[in-house]
Amino acid sequence: MNVEIINTGNELLNGKIKNTNVEWLIKKITKLGARIIQYSVIPDDLDVICSTLQAALEHPADVIITSGGLGATYDDMTLTAISKVVNRPLKLNQRALEMVELKFEYAKKLGWTYANLISKHWKKMAVIPEGSTPIENPPGAAPAVQLEHNGKTIFALPGPPNELHAIFRNAIRPFLKERIKKKVPDTHFYVKGLIEPTISGIIDETYRKFEGIWVKSHPMLHTGKLMLEIHITLQDGYDSAELVENAKDYFIKEIEKLGHGQVITELEA
Amino acid sequence: MNVEIINTGNELLNGKIKNTNVEWLIKKITKLGARIIQYSVIPDDLDVICSTLQAALEHPADVIITSGGLGATYDDMTLTAISKVVNRPLKLNQRALEMVELKFEYAKKLGWTYANLISKHWKKMAVIPEGSTPIENPPGAAPAVQLEHNGKTIFALPGPPNELHAIFRNAIRPFLKERIKKKVPDTHFYVKGLIEPTISGIIDETYRKFEGIWVKSHPMLHTGKLMLEIHITLQDGYDSAELVENAKDYFIKEIEKLGHGQVITELEA
Repeated sequence: MNVEIINTGNELLNGKIKNTNVEWLIKKITKLGARIIQYSVIPDDLDVICSTLQAALEHPADVIITSGGLGATYDDMTLTAISKVVNRPLKLNQRALEMVELKFEYAKKLGWTYANLISKHWKKMAVIPEGSTPIENPPGAAPAVQLEHNGKTIFALPGPPNELHAIFRNAIRPFLKERIKKKVPDTHFYVKGLIEPTISGIIDETYRKFEGIWVKSHPMLHTGKLMLEIHITLQDGYDSAELVENAKDYFIKEIEKLGHGQVITELEA
Repeated sequence: MNVEIINTGNELLNGKIKNTNVEWLIKKITKLGARIIQYSVIPDDLDVICSTLQAALEHPADVIITSGGLGATYDDMTLTAISKVVNRPLKLNQRALEMVELKFEYAKKLGWTYANLISKHWKKMAVIPEGSTPIENPPGAAPAVQLEHNGKTIFALPGPPNELHAIFRNAIRPFLKERIKKKVPDTHFYVKGLIEPTISGIIDETYRKFEGIWVKSHPMLHTGKLMLEIHITLQDGYDSAELVENAKDYFIKEIEKLGHGQVITELEA
């Protein structure tokens, strides 16, 4: 199960706001056992949103998750972009309108809005691509949207983190859980006392011997000491947890053969 | 001055590593007054790196910064991708080799490498696209690379944060400082007691009256109270700090006309 993420919002690019959504989504989605194939952070620019969505539809993603751009203002244009790219006209959705009206009444009660009648700006949040399904947004005003297109599922989520979290938990997590048959096999360990260029030969040799795996090494500090963290994962399109374990065994044996450095499978706290 | 960022690395997509590089770069670069037009986080996959670079070369970016994929192993393929996309063969660079050799001698002294002679894996880090310039990497082994192509400058930085930070400070910050003539005009303030759909009309009206600005509102919590943070920035291709200030004045007056909510220009600590 491959997932691509697209975050829209100038505020994510101008240094004012930390993009906490994408880290949160990656953590939750990979924990469920799906694979994030890439993510993009783009401005509120219709052409850029369209071309990024178009590219995502051509990537091997099963699910595309967008965040941001669902609100009531002119620069909230994610659904316009989706509508263009999947060629489905925007239409007022009756179920979405009910969701928005409920929020309007609630905002009136709290004094957060001053009008008596729901305005076109509120109604804009219920205008979604034809054939898509609105998803309730418990803490926010704009419903999320789910849409099937050419065998892929697009989820358009609002940008505010509390809204995105709630919708993910209520709608996307169950969706993914039902469909993820096998988790991506993954293992990791640590090498102390050697640096990357020194063990590059072993990494390359492991690649050659075990087709279908990814070996990633990256330097880290643990209790002040330099270490290499080694991850071995299965590449997309391969299906064997055994391959990952065999590659790990081979890798560790080769490091031990060097007579230098030390392999650690679990770090002390 | 427009900057696009591309981070490569499976470890940034599998939930194991937080992408601190991009947040750090955005902060530093926008503070200098440049504009980040978008960023992508992609796997160690040659085709994906090539197509992402190709797309970036077609975007209105003056500078493209990549991070990751400069190391000694097979899956470090950023320079291979750059070489393909800009059509310049990879060649052993003498200046880069000197940098790498120095690091090899240093690693030998520290006992981080056990070989007496520098291996092909170490040498790989000195193989860079023809016509590009190696940049010293004080804390790491792989030099960074600078390359001019079709009026754009590509900087390829290593992935480890301490290496990226050092190279940014020593080489990229001075490069940008010299070339950034004007900072992107930018202002912000806060609205208390109203929610986004309620003030969407004012946002849209501000867009209509002041062509060339971006207005972004986003909900935030400050000392437990819901507020809207409003940012007004100049769009790419426009050049008037006055426009931003005029739009701000107009916006604040319109909010005040409502007789609801409250505008705050500075938050109390």
